Formats: sequence, structure tokens, C-alpha cells
Amino acid sequence: MNTNNLWKMNSWNKKFGELQIIKFIRQKFPKRRKEILKGIGDDAMVLRNGYVVTTDSFFENIHFDVRYFSMSALGHHCMAASLSDLAAMGASPICALVSLHLTKTLTIKDIEQLHTGFEKITKKYGMDIAGGDVVTSPAFGVTITVIGYTKNPLMRSGAKPGQALFVTNFLGLAEVGRTALKMNLPKKEYPDAIGKHLYPIPRIFEAQSIKKFATACIDTSDGLSTDAYHLAEESRVKIVIDAEHIPIHPEVGRFCSTNNIESLQCILSSGEDFELLFTAYKLPRMKGTKVFRIGRVMKGQGLYLSVRGKTKRIEPSGYEHSI
Amino acid sequence: MNTNNLWKMNSWNKKFGELQIIKFIRQKFPKRRKEILKGIGDDAMVLRNGYVVTTDSFFENIHFDVRYFSMSALGHHCMAASLSDLAAMGASPICALVSLHLTKTLTIKDIEQLHTGFEKITKKYGMDIAGGDVVTSPAFGVTITVIGYTKNPLMRSGAKPGQALFVTNFLGLAEVGRTALKMNLPKKEYPDAIGKHLYPIPRIFEAQSIKKFATACIDTSDGLSTDAYHLAEESRVKIVIDAEHIPIHPEVGRFCSTNNIESLQCILSSGEDFELLFTAYKLPRMKGTKVFRIGRVMKGQGLYLSVRGKTKRIEPSGYEHSI
Repeated sequence: MNTNNLWKMNSWNKKFGELQIIKFIRQKFPKRRKEILKGIGDDAMVLRNGYVVTTDSFFENIHFDVRYFSMSALGHHCMAASLSDLAAMGASPICALVSLHLTKTLTIKDIEQLHTGFEKITKKYGMDIAGGDVVTSPAFGVTITVIGYTKNPLMRSGAKPGQALFVTNFLGLAEVGRTALKMNLPKKEYPDAIGKHLYPIPRIFEAQSIKKFATACIDTSDGLSTDAYHLAEESRVKIVIDAEHIPIHPEVGRFCSTNNIESLQCILSSGEDFELLFTAYKLPRMKGTKVFRIGRVMKGQGLYLSVRGKTKRIEPSGYEHSI
Repeated sequence: MNTNNLWKMNSWNKKFGELQIIKFIRQKFPKRRKEILKGIGDDAMVLRNGYVVTTDSFFENIHFDVRYFSMSALGHHCMAASLSDLAAMGASPICALVSLHLTKTLTIKDIEQLHTGFEKITKKYGMDIAGGDVVTSPAFGVTITVIGYTKNPLMRSGAKPGQALFVTNFLGLAEVGRTALKMNLPKKEYPDAIGKHLYPIPRIFEAQSIKKFATACIDTSDGLSTDAYHLAEESRVKIVIDAEHIPIHPEVGRFCSTNNIESLQCILSSGEDFELLFTAYKLPRMKGTKVFRIGRVMKGQGLYLSVRGKTKRIEPSGYEHSI
């Protein structure tokens, strides 16, 4: 993939479009202001004074479905997803600015309940909602800007050959939960997965322990392959994911086998788990947080998958190149 | 108007909804974090370290019409509107985070030209684009978060009885321009108005002079009556607008007389001029910037309009209460 491909596409296309457009913007707008420590190319922008800022948008029928999202759960989900970017930087949240994109069919009760969701999660992290915008929109959505602070930001760019790749908890659960809800599968069969999709937990507290020994970090919002690819790109290293080391949550395993999907493929391409994917030389004991070692950092570039002793180069989408 | 009215509405309604929803959010999320100097209730959030942050959303067919907006003009328009909030705070821009809400029908060329618009205006103000988000959306739009800095933020809350109300340049032009474009009126008859709608100028540079003597400030994004109402509310004063002192731009005058509209009403209710509306004891000479004295600050509360010696209370919409 290179940015020239951008010009070969006639229309905006989700599958390859997002990464290409971000590359294009990054080239067009290089970092010039001295106040900025890190601009485009990480989970959040970092100011030299320690403030970390990031913005995320969510739209109905693209990012959430109100058939199974209560407005309160939606408020939680969107704020959690936004906060996850602060967690990935090792930053503690201070406040959010919320832009509400409201369609005319929404009721006042909807708006009130959405804010009940915001209230619960912002309270948990001791943060304010300190601004935003309210506009009429043809499509219901929200854009959340969160501001946090850290003395030592954890970048995507610090991975070094010889380090290992770690992830908190299980991957693929959120996508299984989303699919279970969409397919109207029995909820009691997928409690963790459904909970993960509706109420993801940004790893704000865990990040404070992890940053003591982590060298690079990203949150798993786009799927393991895309997120690991970003780490490799930004750190200018090669990352090898050891397929056999990826933990499979029972609900992901059951869902995949029932639906004849390879669970590895599911985990590589399924996003929105909002776990922390990070590199470190070794892993100290961490109280109360599951952390799995799932790969290695090596000299070179690109993302590789090692399955049963064979190593193949893979693309951010999880797509395997034939070798 | 009080927040209880919120509960009497069943559905979200643009006319009264925005102000009510902002009041509701402000009550639900009082300022708690010590890092925040000013939260909800001004043109932007202000951090104690001097950083000023604000976010604005723009959607096709609500805030802009691509039948007469080139993508480059659109990039300018949205960034200018966002920067205007920084101008109102007397802040200098540092950077923007842009969340692109892209429909599938947009072409790569559209996205490129949108960024040409962003590039020109961000260059003018020496600012970076330092982050953002790219998402598929059911409706085309952008949400822009801008970050600026000022040692001495200019709030909405500093107006005191005995001061006068001033505005930079003419009001009502942008709305006349929008309507002229919508009605496909001859462009050469409304050059200033059309220019104002497509390419508004955020008063970033002017704000640096104005802040030396201004006590309170807001940008005219929602129409003179709504913006003056905000100044009165936040400063806990009464503001009287002297109708005869409001300057009428020839294009606004001609448009209103041709279309049988009262020009005063047009100016009270038409937004998006992005001029600065501010209070001060007196007005020093300002090089190159037209500033008009259009009203007075008095003890009391609410917004009043003085026409031919009669003073009437008016609502933010420009609506006149019968007395």
C-alpha cells in the first residue's frame, strides 16, 4: 500500500480508504508547531505541556444500531471508545467535549438517557464534560473529543527488536457480541461478548501500570492485524504475531466454530475490543489484569503471522499474501 | 425560557432545542476539574494553562449545500467557523483535529479539494492539522476541534453596566449570501454577501487588538439577538441594542427591500457572520477594522431592543414579546 493508490480510487471506500486518507492528510499537513510533540500518527495528539487530545465520531447504522443499543449504553460505548485512545497514550482523562449530531426524530428522553450514559462513565474516571456542540444532522451520531494528561506519553513508535508483543485480555469478543445482537442469538450464550460490545472498558487504570514497562502501545480498535501493523509502521520494526499464543475466549471459540469461521481470522480482523496492545522486554506480574504475550518485535518492517512454524506476511486487514 | 421546558418537548426541535439542551447538559455536568478555568457556557473551553479548545460540526444540507459550495470553499468555511470561536476568546490558533464524516459517494478528488481549503486557511493562521478521525457516515459532514492559546481569555461573562456594545463590520451578510446562492440570484449583485457565506473570515487578528479594551466577547454565529442574549445571560446584565445604530450593508438593505423583509429582523436572526460582538467602556481607534457601537450594557437582565425611543424585550430568536 502506498499513498499513490489513493489516486487510483475514484470513490471513497471504507476498506482501504481510511488508512490511505490518513496517510494523505499526514503528508499534506506535516507537524510545524513547536507546541505539538506528536501530531497525526498515534492514538491521540500530544502537546509538549503533557496534554493529550483525540477525537472520534460515531454514527447510527455505521458504528452502532439503536435496535439493541439503549441510549444510555450508547453514551457509555462512545465515551469508552474515545477514552480508550487516552488509555493507549498512558494519559489520565480530564474532560470531554461532545458534539451531538441530532436527527429530528430523536426525543428529549433519548437525549436525556444518552447523557445518563455519559454521566456514569465520566464519573468513573473523574472527568468533566466541558463543552461541545449541538447540531441538527441528517444522521444521528456523536463526535467526542477527549482531553487527558500524562507526563510520559506512551507512543506507537517505541517498539524495538528483541521486545515482545502483549495484549490485555481477550480479542474478538466485541465483534462476536455485535454479531450475536445483530443475528438475535440467545443473549445468555454470549454474555461477555455482548457486554463487551455494549459496555467496553477503556483500559485507563491498567495503562498506568503498563506504562511503567511498555515501550510502545496502541488500543485494539481496528482489529489485531491493523493495530499491530500500526505499531510496526510507527516503530519501523517487523512484528510477528504468534498465532498459537493468541488466547481464544470460550464465547469467541464457540461462535466461530458454530458459524464455521476460523477464530484466528476473526481476531485478526475484528475491532472495538479497546484492549491495549503493547511491546515490552518482559512482563512483570500485574495485579488483576490478564496480559498475554502474543508476538515478537524484530528487525525489519511489516506485519507477519507465525502459524505452526510457518511465518507469512499479512496486511492490516488480516489478509494473507500468498508467498 | 427555563430548563423545565425541555421536558415539555417530545422531540428534538431546532428552534428552541439547542439552547435548552445546552442548559440541560450544563446543569448535569457542572465544572469539577481544577484544570478547567471555563467549561460549558462560552465560545470555547478554557484550561488554566491558557489552552482553549472548541468543537463544531457541519453537515451537508443543514450547514452547507454542495450545489454552490466547492469542496475547497467548504474546507475554508468550516475551518473559519471553528476558528471564529477561538477569536471570540482572544486566543491564537495552534492546531485543529478534523473528523471527516464521509459518505460513499464522495470521490477522492472531493476529499483532496476539501483539504486544499483546509490547507489555505490553516497556513494563513500558521496552524497545524494535528489529528482527527475518518469514518464512513450516512451523511457528509465534518467536525472540527480547534486548539488555541491565550494568556488572558476574553469571556462572555465580563460585561458591566455602563459599558457599550460593539460589533466588527456588518451583520446579516452571510445569510443574505446563502439565500442569494440558494435562490440563484445574480452573483454580481451580492458579491460581499456571497463571499461572506462561502469564505467567512474569523476575526483572529482583530481579536488581538480588541482584547486590549474589551470586557466580554462572543462571535456572531447564531444571529445578533441570540449572541447578544448570551452575553447578557453570562454577564448577568441587561443589554439594550439600539436599532438605529446597527449598520446596514448595502447588499443586505437591497436584498431586504427587494424581498419585503425588515432588515433589522434579518440582522437580529441571521447568523454565521462570524464577527466579534463585544463590550467595552469606550472604543479606541482601531487601524483597518470597522467597529460599530450598537448598544448599551445596563443593570438588570435580558435582551432589549430600542427602536425609535421605545424599548422592548426580545428573545434570542429576535422574536418580540408583546409588552
